[in-house]
Amino acid sequence: MTELSTMKDGVANQAEASDRVLQILAEAGRLFASKGFEGTSMRDIALACGISKSLLYHHFSNKDEIYARVAVGSTLELYLFVRDRIPDGPPSQKIRAFMVATAEYFRRYRWAWIASTTAFWNDPDRQRHKERLTRRDRFENFLRGLIQEAIDAGEIRKVDVPMTGRLILSSLNWMHRWYNPNKSATPEQIAEIFFDMIFNGLRSGELVELPATEPPKAGRRKSR
Amino acid sequence: MTELSTMKDGVANQAEASDRVLQILAEAGRLFASKGFEGTSMRDIALACGISKSLLYHHFSNKDEIYARVAVGSTLELYLFVRDRIPDGPPSQKIRAFMVATAEYFRRYRWAWIASTTAFWNDPDRQRHKERLTRRDRFENFLRGLIQEAIDAGEIRKVDVPMTGRLILSSLNWMHRWYNPNKSATPEQIAEIFFDMIFNGLRSGELVELPATEPPKAGRRKSR
Repeated sequence: MTELSTMKDGVANQAEASDRVLQILAEAGRLFASKGFEGTSMRDIALACGISKSLLYHHFSNKDEIYARVAVGSTLELYLFVRDRIPDGPPSQKIRAFMVATAEYFRRYRWAWIASTTAFWNDPDRQRHKERLTRRDRFENFLRGLIQEAIDAGEIRKVDVPMTGRLILSSLNWMHRWYNPNKSATPEQIAEIFFDMIFNGLRSGELVELPATEPPKAGRRKSR
Repeated sequence: MTELSTMKDGVANQAEASDRVLQILAEAGRLFASKGFEGTSMRDIALACGISKSLLYHHFSNKDEIYARVAVGSTLELYLFVRDRIPDGPPSQKIRAFMVATAEYFRRYRWAWIASTTAFWNDPDRQRHKERLTRRDRFENFLRGLIQEAIDAGEIRKVDVPMTGRLILSSLNWMHRWYNPNKSATPEQIAEIFFDMIFNGLRSGELVELPATEPPKAGRRKSR
């Protein structure tokens, strides 16, 4: 039960996380990802944020605390961030909103995201790793709920729910490896494109290029 | 041009990579990913492979050489491995074969894969990082060629080719984060499922549950 109560506190703290704290986490994340934990000092972080060391120490008592937050925090904050951005409406549109909101979070806190994801395989702190998995599961279960809703509503076919969730999350989670902020498409636009591809499929209908009025066509789903 | 010739040599070497070398890379990869580069000795690697240190030194002159190979090698070998497994036939089936072969490679050399992917953001060697990107691009361009073929053949709709490639690769590249070898589905089976979802889409047709003979239906692709 320790874990549960830790998580509750986590939620309370994080709901209050100020822009300043998020900025610190993002800058520290960028430094940890590129220079490593050992190679990054509190001074480096303060400098990168353009704040004094004492202001930095006002928010975090040491580097470990920042790292712990960067390395597990993002999943939890992500959950709250995304949950608050899901509109009422058809479940498929909730899935789309889930993807777009996750992408927005990624754009805003990209370096914290990268540091957190990089810590996955080599965080020596097992407890922290376990907590990361718990938070990841919560986020993933939330998505699975939306997928199940869409199946129940007849909007998507009877696919394997966990596997569908993994496909959707993969498309978003891998973005940090190729996304270039200097290119034109925003992460949100990319999420929209992925949603379209996954929801509608790549496959061309038997029809494709037809003028305005579409004549009746044979059904397509059973042909595989 | 140095880079090109290095790559050519790389191809030649890797085509000859013996099972022993691949075993060493896999075991070393597992150790690097979990204990870090510093925490892993040549002795640890030899022990993990069940071979003598002198046999290990027969294949690799030092730990740096193994790490260099683990950290960039897998992308290159992957390209050769996958290319050789693409059958003749409809382009969409080539894409499916691409996905299944990548998944097979992942299953066989999972720890080398993980170590290599983990090195992406924190490999201090810039030249090696650059080489990794070049190899990644080659692998990705190969997939893009298959996607373009499928579009030209009318099998898939006129999607954004690079973006489609990224979606497909994301589904495979993220697998190391959740795949559990003790669960029943193999990576190859998972790749088949993802191919089906991406190719056919999640969306339920307007038809769905109809008896054997399917009556004509209105086209679906334009309705978004």
